Amino acid sequence: MQKLSAEERASFFKDFPNWEEVEGRDAAKATFTFKDFNEAFGFMTRIAIEADKRDHHPEWLNVYNRVEITLTTHDADGLSARDVALASFIERL
Amino acid sequence: MQKLSAEERASFFKDFPNWEEVEGRDAAKATFTFKDFNEAFGFMTRIAIEADKRDHHPEWLNVYNRVEITLTTHDADGLSARDVALASFIERL
Repeated sequence: MQKLSAEERASFFKDFPNWEEVEGRDAAKATFTFKDFNEAFGFMTRIAIEADKRDHHPEWLNVYNRVEITLTTHDADGLSARDVALASFIERL
Repeated sequence: MQKLSAEERASFFKDFPNWEEVEGRDAAKATFTFKDFNEAFGFMTRIAIEADKRDHHPEWLNVYNRVEITLTTHDADGLSARDVALASFIERL
């Protein structure tokens, strides 16, 4: 699994404006806010099932109706095509 | 909803040795490690259902097989009996 090229990385952040760079890490982060905990955890559950199927898991923090997701690929030591694919799934939800 | 008394707070940390104080906050934190993501998210799901029923939600971070849970009661501005009850549920899992 290879890191995204500089060009691919730039396209990712352009195509997914919800996602931002993470200081000090080659990773992408986005925050999603819902009506309540039920909606937030429902969103997480849909991602969890997909993530486990892809064997590519987010790092995430949930506080009530808020979910902060960080994507990176440990095997690539940075953002890879697997992160783009998972972000794309998340954005479609 | 009232904060725990100093005595109740001390008992909590004595009775629940997995849980530790959080620097700069009146909160309790514990880390749980599982075999894999499926087990970790299964644990989270069981807590999520119970937490929503109690209307008392954890702050939590999940990275693959690891779940870090922080409990505090916003309405009490610190640890309350609701945190003790939720920690107790979590420990029984």
